[in-house]
Amino acid sequence: MSNKTNPGNYFEDFKLHQKLVHATPRTLTEGDASLYHAIYGSRFVLQSADSFARGLGFKESPLDDLLVFHTIFGKSVPEISLNAVANLGYAEGRFTKHIYPNTTLRARSEVIGLKENSNRQTGVVYVRTVGLDDHDEQVLSYVRWVMVRKRDPEAAVGEAHVPELTDHVPPSAIVPPNHVRFDTLFDTGQSGSKCFLKDYEIGEKIDHVDGMTVEESDHMLATRLYQNTAKVHFNQFSESKGRFGKRLIYGGHVISLARALSHNGLANAVLIAGINGGRHVNPLFAGDTVFAWSQVLDKAELRKDCGALRLRLVATKNLPCEGFPDKDADGKYPDNVILDFDYWAIIPR
Amino acid sequence: MSNKTNPGNYFEDFKLHQKLVHATPRTLTEGDASLYHAIYGSRFVLQSADSFARGLGFKESPLDDLLVFHTIFGKSVPEISLNAVANLGYAEGRFTKHIYPNTTLRARSEVIGLKENSNRQTGVVYVRTVGLDDHDEQVLSYVRWVMVRKRDPEAAVGEAHVPELTDHVPPSAIVPPNHVRFDTLFDTGQSGSKCFLKDYEIGEKIDHVDGMTVEESDHMLATRLYQNTAKVHFNQFSESKGRFGKRLIYGGHVISLARALSHNGLANAVLIAGINGGRHVNPLFAGDTVFAWSQVLDKAELRKDCGALRLRLVATKNLPCEGFPDKDADGKYPDNVILDFDYWAIIPR
Amino acid sequence: MSNKTNPGNYFEDFKLHQKLVHATPRTLTEGDASLYHAIYGSRFVLQSADSFARGLGFKESPLDDLLVFHTIFGKSVPEISLNAVANLGYAEGRFTKHIYPNTTLRARSEVIGLKENSNRQTGVVYVRTVGLDDHDEQVLSYVRWVMVRKRDPEAAVGEAHVPELTDHVPPSAIVPPNHVRFDTLFDTGQSGSKCFLKDYEIGEKIDHVDGMTVEESDHMLATRLYQNTAKVHFNQFSESKGRFGKRLIYGGHVISLARALSHNGLANAVLIAGINGGRHVNPLFAGDTVFAWSQVLDKAELRKDCGALRLRLVATKNLPCEGFPDKDADGKYPDNVILDFDYWAIIPR
Repeated sequence: MSNKTNPGNYFEDFKLHQKLVHATPRTLTEGDASLYHAIYGSRFVLQSADSFARGLGFKESPLDDLLVFHTIFGKSVPEISLNAVANLGYAEGRFTKHIYPNTTLRARSEVIGLKENSNRQTGVVYVRTVGLDDHDEQVLSYVRWVMVRKRDPEAAVGEAHVPELTDHVPPSAIVPPNHVRFDTLFDTGQSGSKCFLKDYEIGEKIDHVDGMTVEESDHMLATRLYQNTAKVHFNQFSESKGRFGKRLIYGGHVISLARALSHNGLANAVLIAGINGGRHVNPLFAGDTVFAWSQVLDKAELRKDCGALRLRLVATKNLPCEGFPDKDADGKYPDNVILDFDYWAIIPR
Repeated sequence: MSNKTNPGNYFEDFKLHQKLVHATPRTLTEGDASLYHAIYGSRFVLQSADSFARGLGFKESPLDDLLVFHTIFGKSVPEISLNAVANLGYAEGRFTKHIYPNTTLRARSEVIGLKENSNRQTGVVYVRTVGLDDHDEQVLSYVRWVMVRKRDPEAAVGEAHVPELTDHVPPSAIVPPNHVRFDTLFDTGQSGSKCFLKDYEIGEKIDHVDGMTVEESDHMLATRLYQNTAKVHFNQFSESKGRFGKRLIYGGHVISLARALSHNGLANAVLIAGINGGRHVNPLFAGDTVFAWSQVLDKAELRKDCGALRLRLVATKNLPCEGFPDKDADGKYPDNVILDFDYWAIIPR
Repeated sequence: MSNKTNPGNYFEDFKLHQKLVHATPRTLTEGDASLYHAIYGSRFVLQSADSFARGLGFKESPLDDLLVFHTIFGKSVPEISLNAVANLGYAEGRFTKHIYPNTTLRARSEVIGLKENSNRQTGVVYVRTVGLDDHDEQVLSYVRWVMVRKRDPEAAVGEAHVPELTDHVPPSAIVPPNHVRFDTLFDTGQSGSKCFLKDYEIGEKIDHVDGMTVEESDHMLATRLYQNTAKVHFNQFSESKGRFGKRLIYGGHVISLARALSHNGLANAVLIAGINGGRHVNPLFAGDTVFAWSQVLDKAELRKDCGALRLRLVATKNLPCEGFPDKDADGKYPDNVILDFDYWAIIPR
């Protein structure tokens, strides 16, 4: 292999507290916003209509928070997960600035934990990744951990260090956008729902009813848009000989599909404020149909005009969600459940 | 089902003269225009080149009229056709304002007719839908009628009312854009055709020659872009058990495909001014190849610089159109004919 | 066939020195740039990040040079290659102006050579095609030659004339953009590579490692975006009865895929300056996976801040490139090699 191509890092290449600067800053534009709509069919009004956004005090429609997330995530792949076996989890995700078109985003990460697996073939790498805008202001930060192959199983590695991560982002850490008011100006005729913070109860479950079948072109178009270079999503020649015999769909694509479906039941939960946790519990493949349900885990009043819902977003494949398919008492998930994602969304009170 | 999700209206839920405000205003941008080009390969010069549009007096290239139509149509689905069996027809469509990128569109409808079917399982709902822009100005209006399921076949419904609809939009109702001149500035080297209003004869038929094969990703990408939520287009899991065993392609996608093909023969018919009628006479599925032919039904001189062609646009699947496949003497269509659409297009004289 | 549709030119229709004005000028926007990213996953930093581009002295990110090339190429299809059997080669390509979003491009061509084949069924047409912007300034020019069917094999044609074409664009003809400096401002942390002109050796081969599987939707979306009307890319109904039994992928799509893959090894070769030659040596079909390797053919120092690499970009299908698959001693290519493309790219010194 040429010394000019990126072989990616193997587990033994990572050092605790190592700082990684990720390449390819990316200017997100109206074009990316249109593609995001076309790929997921998202219908949250704040991201759909400049007039609505301006009515609340935004400059114009912000980009979907998950488009921003996937863009930052994509940048981190070449250094962090090119040799990953699996993306294991997320925590401590905070969306600190909602982004308008024509913002250039870049990403950097710090290794905050390392733990070799007992088979010595792989290890778990914990990183905190930060996204920044043109003004060097933080747009989001999150922790993820991935299982990464060792180049050489015999290679010696440092002492295991597993970071202490909070179970969830505390409501006090959620900052709704300044200069914006989610009050009487929030027109439910336009948003498509009359349900606000007060109308949701802790423990309540919502079946999002609709299903979306995924094609190979769809997920590859999305994942290339995010400049995510993970090989398993794109290369049928090699994947045909691999673990599943086919291309694996980027986990973030599942999050966006489920979030778009969740509009039907959560139309006023217009911004994502935090990611408390998330697991891709089974793989998704082209031809599968994605369904989703949500559960309200918690509620928080943030300001006079808005609060936040802590939501568990569960996605399935080829299984409608009127029965709220879930893990069993032992924590084992049915094969049809593909995502268990825990996040905070901002909603008018 | 949660009371927070939209179950759609059933036939017995509609009231004559009921007014419906549709959710999710949508700002269409250059990004949407690019996607429209990529999805249909449309080549009408007015929508392709800002320089050409400015030469005629437009501010810049307007968005394709059908992109505007599909966006408004999509907004009306949640209230009108979520429980529809079939989209039966269109009439009295008028495009009253041609739209530039960065316009926010919203939609409302009025129920103008209701007629239960004799089996009492379904009924026909007639609505007039209006699209509005940021300035509350009407962009388009059209009537469509759909067959909608009853929730309860036994439910009592009001007296049947079938609206009187005109057979076609009269030329006097067509208003070409002000401050625009389609005269000597209209460069046929750029538009790709030397044929103007005077060159078309009433009765003339034109085979548009080319064919376009449709993939699942293509039509879903388009229909999600329009935020159309009709389940039959997206959910292979449920459709595999349904009427056709597969996803049904949005009828509007067929109109746009046929219109794009019609550039080859009608390149100077650059704006759509009215929809006189339209029927989706057979379904289209992924893998099918769409062909189209047109017939000149009428001509009208509107101003010194431009007139309108009344065109019948017929689309087929897997059947080239050099023989102009058509309904027979009894009005029965061959299985390969999928669309019979009657519209007015503005063309220089 | 109606006299209103374009039958394309047959070999006997072309005259030496004939000038052709191509229809449908096209304004390329941010939306097209986003689609280009989504379709190819290109990661060259100059085209990804406005902030980076501005740092070097560009107004903003220029559009990918190949997006410009494909747009100009697409315009030339209706007059030149609608009745083509094969696109045989390219030469003397020069990118003389790098283009920003919202530029309107148009194209014209001149026939510079004609040679009937001995079977009298076909002939080779050589054209020089020029792309122009809003200011009537030349954006690019290139020669291509195509094998075109005769309408009537018996038709008499003029004397054969094969133009003299240079083997490659001389470095003296490459003009890097003015008002731009590729020096210390070029941040390798952002570009993703530390390798500059001096780090590449003539003769050096680089395997670009990654593979990209192509779906029908992907290549049709791209080729429609370019408003390319060549029938073989879109019409499965007719192609199912044709030479290959399936749709043939636009050769330019292969160039863009291979160029995007070449980022892994050539990340700092951010602009294309010239096309020396190119052959589509085997066809590509949906379902195939594209790989690529490059060889450095030459190096040139253009200014104090930048130079150019003359690169041979070879693409394969379903064959990884660690062995640099190539033509044999007789110049015969293996069936898996699909592209042999020779171009100049600008890179900081």
